[in-house]
Amino acid sequence: MSYQISIQKTQNPKSKPDQNNLGFGQIFTDHMFIMDYTEGKGWHDPRIVPYGPLSLDPSTMVFHYGQAVFEGLKAYKTPEGRILLFRPKKNMERINVSNDRMCIPHIDVDFAVEACKTLVNVERDWIPEAEGTSLYIRPFIIATDPYLGVRPSWTYKFMIILSPVGAYYKEGINPVKIYVETEYVRAVKGGIGYSKTPGNYAASLIAQVKAKELGYTQVLWLDGVEKKYIEEVGTMNVFFKINDEVITPSLEGSILAGITRQSTIELLRASGVKVTERKISIQEIYDAHAAGTLQEAFGTGTAAVISPIGELNWNGNIIKINDGKIGETSTFVYDTITGIQSGKKEDTFGWIEEVK
Amino acid sequence: MSYQISIQKTQNPKSKPDQNNLGFGQIFTDHMFIMDYTEGKGWHDPRIVPYGPLSLDPSTMVFHYGQAVFEGLKAYKTPEGRILLFRPKKNMERINVSNDRMCIPHIDVDFAVEACKTLVNVERDWIPEAEGTSLYIRPFIIATDPYLGVRPSWTYKFMIILSPVGAYYKEGINPVKIYVETEYVRAVKGGIGYSKTPGNYAASLIAQVKAKELGYTQVLWLDGVEKKYIEEVGTMNVFFKINDEVITPSLEGSILAGITRQSTIELLRASGVKVTERKISIQEIYDAHAAGTLQEAFGTGTAAVISPIGELNWNGNIIKINDGKIGETSTFVYDTITGIQSGKKEDTFGWIEEVK
Repeated sequence: MSYQISIQKTQNPKSKPDQNNLGFGQIFTDHMFIMDYTEGKGWHDPRIVPYGPLSLDPSTMVFHYGQAVFEGLKAYKTPEGRILLFRPKKNMERINVSNDRMCIPHIDVDFAVEACKTLVNVERDWIPEAEGTSLYIRPFIIATDPYLGVRPSWTYKFMIILSPVGAYYKEGINPVKIYVETEYVRAVKGGIGYSKTPGNYAASLIAQVKAKELGYTQVLWLDGVEKKYIEEVGTMNVFFKINDEVITPSLEGSILAGITRQSTIELLRASGVKVTERKISIQEIYDAHAAGTLQEAFGTGTAAVISPIGELNWNGNIIKINDGKIGETSTFVYDTITGIQSGKKEDTFGWIEEVK
Repeated sequence: MSYQISIQKTQNPKSKPDQNNLGFGQIFTDHMFIMDYTEGKGWHDPRIVPYGPLSLDPSTMVFHYGQAVFEGLKAYKTPEGRILLFRPKKNMERINVSNDRMCIPHIDVDFAVEACKTLVNVERDWIPEAEGTSLYIRPFIIATDPYLGVRPSWTYKFMIILSPVGAYYKEGINPVKIYVETEYVRAVKGGIGYSKTPGNYAASLIAQVKAKELGYTQVLWLDGVEKKYIEEVGTMNVFFKINDEVITPSLEGSILAGITRQSTIELLRASGVKVTERKISIQEIYDAHAAGTLQEAFGTGTAAVISPIGELNWNGNIIKINDGKIGETSTFVYDTITGIQSGKKEDTFGWIEEVK
């Protein structure tokens, strides 16, 4: 696409927030990117405009039938003032995978990356510089037909909004306690589990609330057919280290193909670690723990990068992993990926794209 | 609740549409009902205001995490000018069932029915009178926190909008051709299938598009575990008449507890027909057809009330049901329920509530 992105600057820039107290996803920058889709016309009118509310008819399809997809990635500012994105093309490619499942028209991947970079560049002063902070980028598409019939919409909005976010681990990484969910199901093969679409998150809330009430940080999801095989942890992919082999559930259609997941696999393999993608049952984890061969467990995702698992509760059977401490593999993956993302470590993988 | 509903009338009433060309869900009336929820304060400020767009921050949770529920029912105007609702309390009770799964706070059922009646009464001139037409009522709740974190929202909007809709069957009821879907899955036990929430509809679009491309009106969903048991047809519940017994899938957590489904069961049982709710496999339907005992098949839902199935295609095996004609049970259920709904038949069940 050779679209020109029009830019309309705000007349009322907001004051920048305190970098030491950013939280996550609550503060938004001065501008946003919007592009419209109209059946027969395609995507049109890409523009950067002042951040502000959307005006939508109450019958707008996304409110009723949830036809929508989204992505999440981060921009980092290096000590020298360079602005770095981590594998942004992967996110925009994944939007189209999600779009296919949701019957939403494809976006042009290269143009979407360019739109993202252009917006980040406009907002470069919003990227926090304190250790561990970043600018969270949220691309998303919503169905906008004002119509209550159940069918794919004929109009959409593709938007990108930005939020400066705080360090995920302010006081060092603490392994979390995870509740193995055996009642509720997140997704099943043939469903929408591999698509980054609102319905998956809506479906997961009840188990998250239950886990928190029981004193756990998140849930470990099992497959919806046999409640036997491990799927994801909360909204992250999950890895286990058993007998010096790192194992993660294979992509069978019910879990998200995480970009941090893929980067973790590539990084570990490049470092000579054996990584296997396969079905792995919760029983196997408990057996490995009993045999003394379960060394580490951790989640991977954009928000935390790595989240070590210190404890599992499966039907009341509680096991501690690595004495509840962060393990060497988790530490290595976390330090390397965050180092590359923030420009402090050399990027030998070609993962970084600079915003100029 | 003893809430007072404030009413602000529009200064610019729209002109009423042509009653013979209404379609479905495209035209909306002059007013809408809104009530807000704020954590710690509960539901507040119920009001009827001029119909118009919602102004929502782009980070509003419903766009990203799909936390929302909805309902659908109809108001009818009798030849004498009475306004009738069909079992409205059932819809408002079901909203709370959906709310529980979606971690949305309960609404007060009686108050919601009152809100619905009050709005319909304000818009009584919008209820079409032509044969088969009605006023479609869409109550819905959306999560409104401007926040990108994944957790239940602390604020919501409960709204009711109204749309005059045309006769579903303008040229008489024609049984439809249905494609038995064996690749995509709508829902699974432990998931959100029994909740009337956007994610279920988003998940279903791809199969609907595929069926239409193959020349079929809708899909028949099979269970997500074994792809063996029948679940729903499109967005309707489904019934089969075999050997003078009417069978419908039991509510196992993955299908919607339809109000037309329940009314059909109650009506048929009151008429001396044997009705069984149980698991029923697609193989059993094909076996019954081969044995000559499959007499009828039909879907039930608010939009069409009854939709007879004339043909099934399961992995290329095509069977015709009742020679592709509407059967006596479908006709009886359709005539009786639409007769009661429109005030033309006596309501011996106490299903009707009049708006005064």
